[in-house]
Amino acid sequence: MKLLLTGFEPFGGSTVNPSEQVVRALANGALPDVELHTAVLPVDRASGPAALLRAVREFQSDAVLCLGEASGRAAISIERVALNLMDYRLADNAGNQVMDEPVVSEGPAAYFVTLPVRAMLEAMKAANVPAELSLSAGAFLCNQVLFQLLHHLALNEASTRAGFVHVPSLPEQVVNKDRLIPSMSLGIMLTGIRAAITAIANGSKDHA
Amino acid sequence: MKLLLTGFEPFGGSTVNPSEQVVRALANGALPDVELHTAVLPVDRASGPAALLRAVREFQSDAVLCLGEASGRAAISIERVALNLMDYRLADNAGNQVMDEPVVSEGPAAYFVTLPVRAMLEAMKAANVPAELSLSAGAFLCNQVLFQLLHHLALNEASTRAGFVHVPSLPEQVVNKDRLIPSMSLGIMLTGIRAAITAIANGSKDHA
Amino acid sequence: MKLLLTGFEPFGGSTVNPSEQVVRALANGALPDVELHTAVLPVDRASGPAALLRAVREFQSDAVLCLGEASGRAAISIERVALNLMDYRLADNAGNQVMDEPVVSEGPAAYFVTLPVRAMLEAMKAANVPAELSLSAGAFLCNQVLFQLLHHLALNEASTRAGFVHVPSLPEQVVNKDRLIPSMSLGIMLTGIRAAITAIANGSKDHA
Amino acid sequence: MKLLLTGFEPFGGSTVNPSEQVVRALANGALPDVELHTAVLPVDRASGPAALLRAVREFQSDAVLCLGEASGRAAISIERVALNLMDYRLADNAGNQVMDEPVVSEGPAAYFVTLPVRAMLEAMKAANVPAELSLSAGAFLCNQVLFQLLHHLALNEASTRAGFVHVPSLPEQVVNKDRLIPSMSLGIMLTGIRAAITAIANGSKDHA
Repeated sequence: MKLLLTGFEPFGGSTVNPSEQVVRALANGALPDVELHTAVLPVDRASGPAALLRAVREFQSDAVLCLGEASGRAAISIERVALNLMDYRLADNAGNQVMDEPVVSEGPAAYFVTLPVRAMLEAMKAANVPAELSLSAGAFLCNQVLFQLLHHLALNEASTRAGFVHVPSLPEQVVNKDRLIPSMSLGIMLTGIRAAITAIANGSKDHA
Repeated sequence: MKLLLTGFEPFGGSTVNPSEQVVRALANGALPDVELHTAVLPVDRASGPAALLRAVREFQSDAVLCLGEASGRAAISIERVALNLMDYRLADNAGNQVMDEPVVSEGPAAYFVTLPVRAMLEAMKAANVPAELSLSAGAFLCNQVLFQLLHHLALNEASTRAGFVHVPSLPEQVVNKDRLIPSMSLGIMLTGIRAAITAIANGSKDHA
Repeated sequence: MKLLLTGFEPFGGSTVNPSEQVVRALANGALPDVELHTAVLPVDRASGPAALLRAVREFQSDAVLCLGEASGRAAISIERVALNLMDYRLADNAGNQVMDEPVVSEGPAAYFVTLPVRAMLEAMKAANVPAELSLSAGAFLCNQVLFQLLHHLALNEASTRAGFVHVPSLPEQVVNKDRLIPSMSLGIMLTGIRAAITAIANGSKDHA
Repeated sequence: MKLLLTGFEPFGGSTVNPSEQVVRALANGALPDVELHTAVLPVDRASGPAALLRAVREFQSDAVLCLGEASGRAAISIERVALNLMDYRLADNAGNQVMDEPVVSEGPAAYFVTLPVRAMLEAMKAANVPAELSLSAGAFLCNQVLFQLLHHLALNEASTRAGFVHVPSLPEQVVNKDRLIPSMSLGIMLTGIRAAITAIANGSKDHA
């Protein structure tokens, strides 16, 4: 299976983004039966989705798994849906602040992800990684790139399966916050994302 | 420095206790300048504190650090105080359920711990381990053994410094819960407790 | 403005449902410029949506506002979207348990609500009622009736505007729980829902 | 029964303090069998405790119930203990910031409150008011005035019973916060504090 795995650069004043760290760590390792391509996307309303779609066209992978950071969550969240809505809770790295605009004018209200989310959930839990299915990827860049990705694949009637997974903050990101929020070590994240990728690869074989 | 490090056996239906795992992992490693003794205490109103006091008398250590599990917390909690109050939120492993009884009749209302809690906090944060000072160790076994330990040392005018640290649940303990609560990997816990012990050892040298 | 306001009967072992109490309390009072019709829906996969659509057809109102209970939330949640997905976290009152089925086969992935959600939010906050916009109404009955309502209105090209608001638990529902969750008094809920209805009525006039 | 009931003035940038509002509302009403005296204390390291002790000496009441605000809690918290520790999380209204100092040098580590906390809890729950026992009143002014009150009564061997209850934030205090925290309406708070006072009065009769 050819898999495109993406993360995001840091944003919102942070100097690290766990999704980028996961992508860089997995890029250097081998996953059985998986040909992995990776990209780190800018947190920018325009260039972020553009970079993703460029990589999608270039790699022509069987599956695309995008990662992002969801500060405050205690578990890895497997997103089920992308909304055609942008309502940024903070500005992107280019300073864009968007309220109540569609991602794609005249596009549908939402797309469901096409990765095997239940199998990914069970694989993570079997690996002792706290994980959950999520019904909302928010209305910031994470949701936006997922929507644009699924819209692109739908328009092109592509067989590529695609989805999004949010990871919690890393311990070093929360250690000096006034209010202690949950965090997850990079090791646990890597175990979880590897398990999810294996589930995607197995699902891909089932369909072959 | 001679340090007695203790944890608790599993309780409340769980098959693991992270405090026990931390103690067993550190018992097998070397800490610079520290002669480590360890014990795992039963979660039992009577034999738990008795096992701790027996180890204290036997090892005659410079410092005692007791560990316990605080399910639901997102950070390692350095306790500051032990109350002369038992109000068990669940039964101990012998089935004892206690409400509103003193730990020691005619004892004082509380003892402050005598370990360098600020230095332990700073050491953990410097090691990128989420940590916080806590004003309540609860009213279950963790608080009880801490109170009995500090009472024993006070009665004997001992120079031994003593305290308590709560660790969160491990990922494998929360993975199947209906409600996802925070967890912390064993690796992060070990980094944190090692940093705390080093801070205790350094504090001990300051006092020498 | 003619408004249809609905709530749900109790479910999940509870003997009260705050959404029903809000509907019954408002049914007995007067709202300026609003002709109010009310209904209390069964928590049943089949008869719940059927009762709602029957009331919609019967009353031919300008707007439909459905209320439901979201236990654990601290604020009134104004839902923005309904998903074409059922994944019940517990059984409905007829014992139906559903996992990963569409609400409407061959229906779209989602509908956005058509009520003025920002104006409703600002009206509630101006009335000192804790409120928030929400991107997920869950995947239980609340989401299901909202999806079926919006689907019905879309198919019939109706001008009726429709949406959903979740209210927290009442104090009497949380008072004996082991874990204390947030609650909201009926009085605060009524103030909030009255403010939201006024915002809907004003929005309706703007469009006239 | 003669009861002294106190609250605090606003602090930390807020323009209201729910404890002050509860005190002012109850001062204007009648409680059966209770002669009520009230005071609103400054949030000031020196003048706050001084005002409380002045009122205690002046009114010579049978019981003292101090109220304070605990932002973020979902229930009324009945405090069980006061610690001989000041570790202000923010400055008081005079700009004093204190870290790790005792309230009373050479004082004991803690005092338990002497009001009937279990009866107060049961009375609040019976009145459908979310309430809980709490093992920590923090290390700010609330804890400090409670410690100084209990210390004063202990030194003077007074029969006056004394304690502290924390109330949540009011809805109008949380409505514009970025992060929605729990709140409680003034009406529910008044019902709860009235129930607690009745429990104190009944306990007082039991002892007569």
